[in-house]
Amino acid sequence: MSSVDVGDRAAAGTLGGEGRSPFRDAVVTLKHGAGGVAMRRLIETLFVPDMPDIGHHQIGLRQLDDGAALRVGCEWLVFTTDSHVVHPIFFPGGDIGRLAVTGTVNDLAVMGATVPLALALGVVVEEGFPMVDLARIQDSIRAACLESGAPVVTGDTKVMGRGEMDGIVLSTTGVALTRTVVTDAGLREGDRIVVSGTIGDHGIALMALRHGLDLGGGLRSDVAPINGLLHRALSVAPGAVHAMKDPTRGGLSGALHEMAAKSGVEILIDEPEVPVSEPVRSAAEILGLDPFHIANEGKVVIGVAADAVTEVLDALRGHPLGAAAAAIGICRSGTPGRVVLDTGLGRRLLPEIEGEPLPRIC
Amino acid sequence: MSSVDVGDRAAAGTLGGEGRSPFRDAVVTLKHGAGGVAMRRLIETLFVPDMPDIGHHQIGLRQLDDGAALRVGCEWLVFTTDSHVVHPIFFPGGDIGRLAVTGTVNDLAVMGATVPLALALGVVVEEGFPMVDLARIQDSIRAACLESGAPVVTGDTKVMGRGEMDGIVLSTTGVALTRTVVTDAGLREGDRIVVSGTIGDHGIALMALRHGLDLGGGLRSDVAPINGLLHRALSVAPGAVHAMKDPTRGGLSGALHEMAAKSGVEILIDEPEVPVSEPVRSAAEILGLDPFHIANEGKVVIGVAADAVTEVLDALRGHPLGAAAAAIGICRSGTPGRVVLDTGLGRRLLPEIEGEPLPRIC
Repeated sequence: MSSVDVGDRAAAGTLGGEGRSPFRDAVVTLKHGAGGVAMRRLIETLFVPDMPDIGHHQIGLRQLDDGAALRVGCEWLVFTTDSHVVHPIFFPGGDIGRLAVTGTVNDLAVMGATVPLALALGVVVEEGFPMVDLARIQDSIRAACLESGAPVVTGDTKVMGRGEMDGIVLSTTGVALTRTVVTDAGLREGDRIVVSGTIGDHGIALMALRHGLDLGGGLRSDVAPINGLLHRALSVAPGAVHAMKDPTRGGLSGALHEMAAKSGVEILIDEPEVPVSEPVRSAAEILGLDPFHIANEGKVVIGVAADAVTEVLDALRGHPLGAAAAAIGICRSGTPGRVVLDTGLGRRLLPEIEGEPLPRIC
Repeated sequence: MSSVDVGDRAAAGTLGGEGRSPFRDAVVTLKHGAGGVAMRRLIETLFVPDMPDIGHHQIGLRQLDDGAALRVGCEWLVFTTDSHVVHPIFFPGGDIGRLAVTGTVNDLAVMGATVPLALALGVVVEEGFPMVDLARIQDSIRAACLESGAPVVTGDTKVMGRGEMDGIVLSTTGVALTRTVVTDAGLREGDRIVVSGTIGDHGIALMALRHGLDLGGGLRSDVAPINGLLHRALSVAPGAVHAMKDPTRGGLSGALHEMAAKSGVEILIDEPEVPVSEPVRSAAEILGLDPFHIANEGKVVIGVAADAVTEVLDALRGHPLGAAAAAIGICRSGTPGRVVLDTGLGRRLLPEIEGEPLPRIC
């Protein structure tokens, strides 16, 4: 038998038997996929334990980074996967195809692997899905592959019956080689926190679309491959970029909390410096959402040595995708994992939320 | 804009405009995911064209092999992905977790990469899915990882709303390094065709379960990682294994047709030599299915030089997963791509079908 009988685990107490469970919930809920505390708890309890060992000095499941990094000769093979369930599949600024390529390319890039080697693409589609929509998505995939230099080299196609799945799910996996890996855990005291542009654009654009909120076309997803942008930022200050993360599900807040906790530092954010576009600010207010907690799909949070922050900012701002880059904070001792907001009027803690408030955002 | 406007393609004639399409169907149907002619046509028309070039002497999307193979230093990086939508998720002999690991490990192995480096796992699950079932699937994943030596090193978790997806979909991607790549296109005239065991077990077991057909417990999926088995077969006769493929969706027939067409040979199969278990034979008859067209999840079709067939067969039979291995045919000139069955009473063409007759078989 391949599967360990649930009864065995129940008897051993790990599932508690009699329908009880070590998880707080008896069933999966939307928050388990929302990129926050609930999802991390699920992954740490369920997916991480007892995997075959991959040895020291490698980055695997346990590190919960944007991907894995495995030693291959004198380089690192960076390896990352994402399944995309975004709804609706076409939205201002992009679609599920562009999102699938971008999400994976960006996860490679924030680990320092800015030259992707190849992508694998798994397509699961519902019976009855319009072929013209599939063609449109494929055009978008192809365009994003050309833009990022990441070819799809292998794939898989599955069809589920009508009503068995809502539309289409794309799973993208990327591989890349790099000499230097950047993790999300490398922040040091004194490092500056840089964000490559405005926050909240992707999530707010989708949410506005779902609610039929029209702000004169100003709301667009920021979905874009940022490997070229990061290649530039890493080149100008070798060794000065200590940590990176893309603030997708859970938004800037989620990324900052994760980086602070893993790095053992406290982050102080200068709130007025955080770039938020006017349409996003307005829509977020109407929708009752905080852009800090909303997904981005073309942004990066960088922890950089203080003496290199000007070069890195200049490099980012010289690229179309980094024009609004800003230094927004600093790492300091204090309470590791804590993120403090200086609002200009006072200081408060940035709360760590259970997860992205918007389902199927990516 | 990332996506090419469908209107542009229509104007250029590739979509034909006015709702017409170069595809035979206006919508996706079950056969587009069924591993046969219809799926190949969709992939070749839609997914393959105009991808960024990966250079000569590499194996990419265009080759439609079980995975890609990319040159990395003096080795090959083999890279393969599969999304798993099997229904029901628990079945005799395995479950979706074991299937997900096995499917990917076997795709690496049939390309000659019998020592997997790592797996990436994307989980998409429906809101309300029982946590105990998720734990049971994860136990099964872990067990299959240990069995095959393939650790999951990175992953992704998404939740879709209640009714937006039927249960759970697992997408698994594997990477492995190998000095020698084996393709599905390397058959030569005179090669013997070997199959590593009985055929049809996986698909028939699932179909019998769906129909409530009970043959006294004799029907079980063959789902198993065969990388250890293939490692053995490749070691005993270096260079003599010219082609391999795992006969999953589309069954033995699909694998033989694809190998014959890509290799430019005709295959003659000695039908009485093809191993089929008694329960599978009986159930297939009752269900009106031909085991030749039914999915396997722990088998391989090997094309081997005639003078090495005995060593390879002995090596396979010495392993628990290859006990019923048999030489079932020969490659010859004739009509490239054709598969001829010698039934013992006469000869007939083995038809190439549109696809696996069973939806959500893997």
